[in-house]
Parts: sequence; C-alpha cells; structure tokens
Amino acid sequence: MAAEIVNSKDGLDGDVLDPAFALHRGGKMAVQATVPVQDADDLSLAYTPGVAKVCSAIAEEPELVADYTWKSQVVAVVTDGSAVLGLGDIGPEASLPVMEGKAILFKQFGGVDAVPVALDCRDTDEIVDTVARLAPSFGGVNLEDISAPRCFEIERKLKSRLDIPVFHDDQHGTAIVTLAALRNAARLAGRPLGELRTVISGAGAAGVAIARILVEAGIGDVAVCDRKGVVHSGRDDLTDVKRELAGFTNKSGRTGSLESALEGADVFLGVSGGTVPEQAVATMADNAFIFAMANPNPEIHPDVAAEYASVVATGRSDYPNQINNVLAFPGVFAGALQVRATDITEGMKLAAAEALAAVVADELRPDRVIPSPFDERVAPAVTAAVAAAARAEGIARC
Amino acid sequence: MAAEIVNSKDGLDGDVLDPAFALHRGGKMAVQATVPVQDADDLSLAYTPGVAKVCSAIAEEPELVADYTWKSQVVAVVTDGSAVLGLGDIGPEASLPVMEGKAILFKQFGGVDAVPVALDCRDTDEIVDTVARLAPSFGGVNLEDISAPRCFEIERKLKSRLDIPVFHDDQHGTAIVTLAALRNAARLAGRPLGELRTVISGAGAAGVAIARILVEAGIGDVAVCDRKGVVHSGRDDLTDVKRELAGFTNKSGRTGSLESALEGADVFLGVSGGTVPEQAVATMADNAFIFAMANPNPEIHPDVAAEYASVVATGRSDYPNQINNVLAFPGVFAGALQVRATDITEGMKLAAAEALAAVVADELRPDRVIPSPFDERVAPAVTAAVAAAARAEGIARC
Repeated sequence: MAAEIVNSKDGLDGDVLDPAFALHRGGKMAVQATVPVQDADDLSLAYTPGVAKVCSAIAEEPELVADYTWKSQVVAVVTDGSAVLGLGDIGPEASLPVMEGKAILFKQFGGVDAVPVALDCRDTDEIVDTVARLAPSFGGVNLEDISAPRCFEIERKLKSRLDIPVFHDDQHGTAIVTLAALRNAARLAGRPLGELRTVISGAGAAGVAIARILVEAGIGDVAVCDRKGVVHSGRDDLTDVKRELAGFTNKSGRTGSLESALEGADVFLGVSGGTVPEQAVATMADNAFIFAMANPNPEIHPDVAAEYASVVATGRSDYPNQINNVLAFPGVFAGALQVRATDITEGMKLAAAEALAAVVADELRPDRVIPSPFDERVAPAVTAAVAAAARAEGIARC
Repeated sequence: MAAEIVNSKDGLDGDVLDPAFALHRGGKMAVQATVPVQDADDLSLAYTPGVAKVCSAIAEEPELVADYTWKSQVVAVVTDGSAVLGLGDIGPEASLPVMEGKAILFKQFGGVDAVPVALDCRDTDEIVDTVARLAPSFGGVNLEDISAPRCFEIERKLKSRLDIPVFHDDQHGTAIVTLAALRNAARLAGRPLGELRTVISGAGAAGVAIARILVEAGIGDVAVCDRKGVVHSGRDDLTDVKRELAGFTNKSGRTGSLESALEGADVFLGVSGGTVPEQAVATMADNAFIFAMANPNPEIHPDVAAEYASVVATGRSDYPNQINNVLAFPGVFAGALQVRATDITEGMKLAAAEALAAVVADELRPDRVIPSPFDERVAPAVTAAVAAAARAEGIARC
C-alpha cells in the first residue's frame, strides 16, 4: 500500500505519511446495482412502470418486503459518535471511518450489507425515535460506539419497539467472543466452566454484557469491578445499570478493591482501559486465565500475564488469542437475517458463543482458544447456530 | 429475464407471473468494500488500529470527512412513502422498491452512491428532525415521493438547516427536464422562450417547481391550474404554497378554467394525472407544444396531441420526447457532490436544464427535443454545468 502525504493538524506539526490515510481516501465502500440497468427494458422492470407492481404487492402483503427489496439483508450501523474506539466522544462525522470499517467487515465476513448511520443527536429518546423511524429500510440495527449508560437504555427501548434485531456490538459482540474463549480455556484445562471464579474489570458496556452472558452460561461466581472496586448492592453510588448488575453478580458477596477480588480468582477479564498491577495478578489461583482486552494497551502486558496464567488473551492482533468482535457480529446478524428473526436473544448469543468455541474445540492450545478472525469456518458456524437458535425460540419468520 | 411465480393477493386471484417480481427478488442493490479486507494487515489499516488515526484527523479537521469517508459521494434517498409513483400513500416499506430503483439509477447514471431511507413518520417536523440527524452520514439528500404540500415545507426547512444539498426530485428533477425540452422546442420552432404563453395543469410538487423554473428562465406568462382552474390571488381557497404560486405566476391575471386558459396558449404542460379534452387542446395557438406528462396515462393521448401541436412530449418511454427525471438527478447530485456544494440552488437547476438541452441542440427534431435517458453525454454535461454553477455562486467547498 502506497503511503500518502496528508495535511493534518494532528499534533505532528506537519504532514503525515501514513498508509491508513491512503487507504481511506474516497472512503472504503460503495453501493452497487445487482440488477442490470443498461437499456429501456431493464429500466421498465427495475424502475417504472414495473416497480409499481412490486410496490403494490408489498402494500397488500407487507411481509413481501423481505423478498423483493434488500431490507432483509441490510443492517444499519448506528452511532452517535460518543464513545468511538478508545478515542471517546469525537462526534458523528469523525466516527464514520469506524462505521464504514464495520460495514465492510459485515460484508466481508458475513455477506451482510451494512450502511453507516452516524447521528447528530445525543438525547437517548431522540436516538431511539430516529432509529425507529429508519427501521422500515433495514433488516437489523447494529448499535456501535455509543457511550454508557445511554447505550443500555437505547438498546432496551429499541428492542422493545422494533420487530427487527437490535444488537449493541460493544456489549454483546465482546461478550460472545469472551465467553467462547473462556469456554475453550476451561475445556483445555479440563475444568468445568461453572466453577471458574471470575473477576471482570470494567462495568461499562462490555463489562455488563460479559457479566450477563457468563451468568447465563452458568458461571456462578462473577464479580465486576469499576474504579471504586467490586460492584455490590451495599454501595450507594451505583447507577441503575450497576445496581442491576449487582443484583445478578457477586453471589459470594465480595466488597473491596479489584486487587482483593483477584486473590485466588481463576479468571481475570479486563475491559476497563485501566491497568492491573502484576502483584495483584500474582495472587490469582494457579493456572489462571487472563484476558487483558483493553486496546491498544492491555490491562497487564501479555508476557507478564503469561507468567501467572495458563491461558492469556488480549484484544490485539499481534498476540495470540485475539478477542475480536468480528468473530461474532457478522455471523450473528447473518443468522438472524437469514431466518428474519424479530430479535437477537440471549439464547441466540449463547448459541453464537458455543458455535464459535466449537470451531477450534478439536485444535485447542493455550495460544489458540479462539479462532483467528480469518478462519473461514467461523461465520458459517455462527450463522447456522444463531439461525437455529432463533427457530428454536420461535422468533424466526421464515 | 425469466419470469417467476409469486404468491400475491394483488387482485389477480392467484399467482402472478411477472418478470418484474423475478428481477426484484433479493432486492436490487448491495454494498461493496472498495478496499481489501483479506488479511490482518488489511484489517489493521481499514479497521483498528489504523482507522483511529483517520478518525482523530477528522475530529480535528472536520472537513477531512469528505476526503476519507464515502460521505461526500453518498446520497440519502428519503421518503415517507406518502406519494409513491401514481400509487399514492402506500407507506415506507412498500416504497422501498422505488427507492432502491432510484438508488441504482444514481449509481448507474451519475456514479453517485445512494441509500434508500424510507421513514416511518409523517409529521413534517419529525421528518425534518430525522433527516437532519442523519446528515453527518450523507453528502446530500434526495427527497422522493413525499406528498404535497408537506414536501415543500420539508425541503425548505432542510435546506435552511443543512449545509449539504437537499433536492426534492419530484419537484426539481421534473422541472429541469421540462425546461430543457421546452427550451429545445422553442429553439426548433425559432421562437423566443420568453414569449411562450404557458399553461401548467397541476399545482402539486411538479407543477409548482416547473412554474418556478419557467419564470426564472424568463417565461413571462405562466398560468398554473389546479382542479378548480387557474391559481390566482383572488381565490380564497388557496394553500400557502398556492398563494405564493399565485404571486409569481399568472401575470396576465387570468381566472377561470383550465380550458379557458388554454385558448390561444402556446404551451401545455400536464403534471396533473387528470385529462384534458381534445376540444380544449384544439383551441391552443398554432404549432403549440404539448407535454402531457402524467404517467402511465398522459393527460391527452400523444397521437391526438400531435394533431394540434408541433412538439409533443410525455412521461412514457414508449413515445418520443420522454420527460424522464433520470436525465437530471444523477448529474445534478454528481455535480453538487463533486464540488461539495452546500446547496442546490435555482441557478444550478437552470444550469442543469441548459446543459441538458444543449446535448441535443444540434440534432433537434420534433421527436427529439430531449435526449434519451441512455444518452451517455447527458450525465457528464449536467454534472459539469452544475459544478460550474455552484462554483460561480460561491457555494462550492472544493
């Protein structure tokens, strides 16, 4: 990839020479016609007068929209630009490169069409109303990079209002991949998943969703820590979301710091963006699993973590066991869209994690508890599992 | 194109055998990546971590969004499904085949990416707010098939609120192509455009916009008729839009019926969906121009019109001189986007009409006052003219 000189005031005091800018010039995606529009006959079928018959048929039988438009294969990638990557609140325009990237990953890995929808509004109800009004055009909604706790309420309201799948990837994509990796780590160690005492650092979007899916997967002892330590119901500084979190986690009633929670713990899952001292990690149980997923800087360096853990995972592509959402969201939506599911349920997420874990279940090594993002078996496996789960739950429409 | 059997309750009492349905199966469009996403290196540029640098650069210099995303080349095709083709209020889902058709025409004829946005809301301000919130993701907004008079207010408010082009194609696309054809008809007849006494039947979206562009192009005597006859300021039944229309048309102060207005008129422009009796057309001036543009049924049959007129145009592809919006909107948006215009002005529309007329100015015949939709000279000519007009008006950003 040729580099390109870009004028920028990005603090480098001059021009930037960077292949990422060269690649991004003109954007990363386009629309294409999938039918011919070369002559008058083509036009009379794809547009007027032929199109009118298709419109009339849909007006009479609304479900035909799924057969005769791209609605059932296109996802809106919706953000307000308030929590973009590790960059924070950079606004809708500046978030577009991420949303386009997400859109092309949907296409490349799941065969799902996707359109970036970066919204110029911040009020929770305004975002909900806006997305609800857009819903006729889309088969699903992928919420992305919306700050907590707004992301929870937005997702909850949209799920209850819409009859198409709504999925906040920062929560559930991360949760699915984390569970899959943890399941395989347990398998590799010959330990029952349910017995793993687990500590999560970070009570934002990813932390909450991971806690939920782990509890649903049968892990009895999950403690979530925020900056003030373990989230427990005795604290008087909890948001609504954290109060709910305290209700279904921390069965053993821990209080105190992250460090104290880590003593003797089997699993550390970091989604905090912070750091964890080596001394704290050293107090974990033998053969611990350490997933230090903060990006680009893991909570503890993976080489250090490896001194204390039997399995180490990160969010980075340059270390083994990358917890990468692209392992989940393309197949999750492809499966949901395939059967025109009305929702993406907890059961469908668990099925996705199971299927993802199963891809490498016969090839497990400490440095391979999760498939590579480029493993071509992943998306078909997740798609099939999610579609089957939707059918089993009775929320498939075809 | 193979036909297909479709289950439908569309009044045919059974299955429908129709190539339009076969063509529409699965929709008419898709998204494609324009950059590679085949391996980890690709991913590290198109997505994390490389994308973060591009996001940061845009956050610091917002105008870079036009260089490094697809925003500056993608148009939202926005409707509420309230006035779709001649089908009327069929709702957002049923309008999607038209919006997809429009999107692929944008791509095929103008090289412009376009995304269908069919909205589930009807309130004028809600539509305006929704589109305004979407604006960060798009380089322009093409309003489509929104019923009058709401379409006027929606367009006006969006134009004042947004710094990207907003264009209601049912109004201005039709107006541009009509003016181009009329200009060439006058050229062919050796008559000054300004002296053509013109009667427009229909005071909806297209009629109002045609009246406006004709007056701006210098036609002094334009009378617009609705179902109750000539729109004049003495009437007490006028909507705000028609009152404004009465203010800038009908300089000769006509009252009465469409039929009476046609007596001695040089030009009839039909955008009403109604009919005009042959007797009324027979009273027009010699060598009149009759554009009976209602679709699929022209206000008067073109063969009958030809008995009284030197130039006849319709909205149909199976008769000469088709007034087809596809001659305008792809080039109009391509030109506006090319120079990142902040608006689409009356001057840009006039320039588009001039350029469109000029394409066949040296080849004029009574049955060719307007190019074919498949004339490959059209879009480049319109694009260049619109871009130049935007620059001349000082509203280009590059």
